[in-house]
Amino acid sequence: MKIKVTQEKLSRALNNVSRIAIGKVTLPILNNVLIRVDHKKVSLITTNLDMAMIDFLPVSSSEDGVVTIPAKLLAEFVSNLPKNETIQISSRDTKVEIKAGKYSSVINGSIADDFPELPEFEEKKAVIYKVGVEEFKNSISQVIIASSNDLTRPALTGVFFNTYDDCLAIAATDGYRLAEKILINKVESEVKAIVPSSTLQEVLRSISDDVEEVEISFNDDLVRFRLGEVEIISKLIDTSYPDYQKLIPKNNNIKITLNREELIRITKLAALFARSVGGSIICETKSPDTFSVKSIANEYGENDSIIETEVDKDGRVNFNSRFILDALNSLDSKEIEFEFSDHISPAVLRNKKDKKYTHIVMPLSS
Amino acid sequence: MKIKVTQEKLSRALNNVSRIAIGKVTLPILNNVLIRVDHKKVSLITTNLDMAMIDFLPVSSSEDGVVTIPAKLLAEFVSNLPKNETIQISSRDTKVEIKAGKYSSVINGSIADDFPELPEFEEKKAVIYKVGVEEFKNSISQVIIASSNDLTRPALTGVFFNTYDDCLAIAATDGYRLAEKILINKVESEVKAIVPSSTLQEVLRSISDDVEEVEISFNDDLVRFRLGEVEIISKLIDTSYPDYQKLIPKNNNIKITLNREELIRITKLAALFARSVGGSIICETKSPDTFSVKSIANEYGENDSIIETEVDKDGRVNFNSRFILDALNSLDSKEIEFEFSDHISPAVLRNKKDKKYTHIVMPLSS
Repeated sequence: MKIKVTQEKLSRALNNVSRIAIGKVTLPILNNVLIRVDHKKVSLITTNLDMAMIDFLPVSSSEDGVVTIPAKLLAEFVSNLPKNETIQISSRDTKVEIKAGKYSSVINGSIADDFPELPEFEEKKAVIYKVGVEEFKNSISQVIIASSNDLTRPALTGVFFNTYDDCLAIAATDGYRLAEKILINKVESEVKAIVPSSTLQEVLRSISDDVEEVEISFNDDLVRFRLGEVEIISKLIDTSYPDYQKLIPKNNNIKITLNREELIRITKLAALFARSVGGSIICETKSPDTFSVKSIANEYGENDSIIETEVDKDGRVNFNSRFILDALNSLDSKEIEFEFSDHISPAVLRNKKDKKYTHIVMPLSS
Repeated sequence: MKIKVTQEKLSRALNNVSRIAIGKVTLPILNNVLIRVDHKKVSLITTNLDMAMIDFLPVSSSEDGVVTIPAKLLAEFVSNLPKNETIQISSRDTKVEIKAGKYSSVINGSIADDFPELPEFEEKKAVIYKVGVEEFKNSISQVIIASSNDLTRPALTGVFFNTYDDCLAIAATDGYRLAEKILINKVESEVKAIVPSSTLQEVLRSISDDVEEVEISFNDDLVRFRLGEVEIISKLIDTSYPDYQKLIPKNNNIKITLNREELIRITKLAALFARSVGGSIICETKSPDTFSVKSIANEYGENDSIIETEVDKDGRVNFNSRFILDALNSLDSKEIEFEFSDHISPAVLRNKKDKKYTHIVMPLSS
């Protein structure tokens, strides 16, 4: 195996794939990157058994072959070499020699046979969608925040991709809040699949500046993301997703419009005092024009802030300040709609103009 | 007590003093800031018993009085208020009311009598030095890195301020490396005092952009730093400092000149492999023109990099890569001098032109 490549290209690819090369004690070869040269096509491959990342490297010359070596060591070595240097990597058995001008190293690798098999993605059964990269990044970020870390409820640790009314929607919930976004308005093929949030985090991190479009393909039990030169293949979460749409309230009593920045500010002020009471803050409306956020913490003191806005009905509901702040940070318009009713109905937060994104937050018992 | 002040001034001052307000379980009042208004002069004071920080706040109006309240809560509250807002703080007994436009809070304070007494700095016995702020910041940063965290050798956890040959020098050592800097070339009064490194870290953090000069005053057991509106008073470390000057070798065999950036690069490359051998790297000279840095780690592989430079004598010494990198990062010229002899003599690293800063590193037994 022999390749010649610029420092810049190699470093970018290695820093990317080495992120998931975190070996388990029982399987240290997962620390390694597999370098495969096949018909002068070079791929760098890492896997954590749940997902695999493949970076197709454009190189100036190559000799076929395959080897695996510690990914982080190679990535750090290459990233410390000068930007304009040409790097030559060649292997003899499991010894990998790296040369770049006055710098040379020999790194001990392992034979590629020990590297775990990748899940094979069956192309012909696949359902394929394409999304603009900015829309993809924003939408995933808006939804993933509501997913759960609780491994006892595996469905909730993922983002649910599902088609209805000819749309592709993505949704996540941890039982306390829920976020849904219409990702594509008009689709022809159907899908119901739960993608692990951890996979989506890696997909977001792997999108480089030159990627314009993300290709998402599903088959029975795998999802594949194509991002320019990078491919990520991941297992799906194999279970059913709760019927989340019935959780979104249709008729909340109180509907007000608020400046998002201003609501973030007064929620943060109240959150400081709410620390000693589990983050509980009081949202209150008084017609005709007063919305306030309060917190009372016997230990520290209390806090009260007001925003003037049009108010129809009086009401008072407690929420967890962190969930309200997460929702507000996921919204992106100047004005937002905030709807709530009482201490058993979830609140709904939406952008004032664009209704493709819905964030709901459960109230706290006051 | 009543003060009126802009958000910007109050927030800057509170963020500064609240850093050292980290209460001990046995003395929670150390979480508090003391706000004192005396003849319309407002000071914010925090202490951790070893040091005290005082910020003199320029305010637009005030009523005399004194109160203490949780420093971090107040700092975070104020930093979330809008930049252009005027803030009014007033106290009645231990209740402190904070008002700013539509935002209001009441924070529970404590009576000021419980706040620990500050060490009193006796002005008339003091020895006073003044240093330009950039020179001060650079010099402290260059030296403090060599100080120790080992509390069993208290002298080494500080920076030694000492006068000799009409200079004020500062020095620190942890037993493995030593750094010395001539802080002031010509002084008239003498001093020998060990300032805790933790105090100096806080002094560095407290220097705002508008400070031009640092005033350093010593008396028997205290040091005071004046930085514009901020004053830091700290206990000295009450012990003697080792006679460090005899540790600086005068006649090393091998003297070479190296490009600093290039030496940093090849030391970092070697350090990657040296992890499994306690950071040990091999520095080698071969006359007439070869300097190399190597590392050999049986587990990972090996590494060898070369810099061409004029070499008189052949030699080979092992060093800890971290200490060499710390030294190189503290130097600031393009070209540096690197002197060493054998595995028992310390190496000396200096800027090629400016000899006011000396960094020495003990070798490792190879």
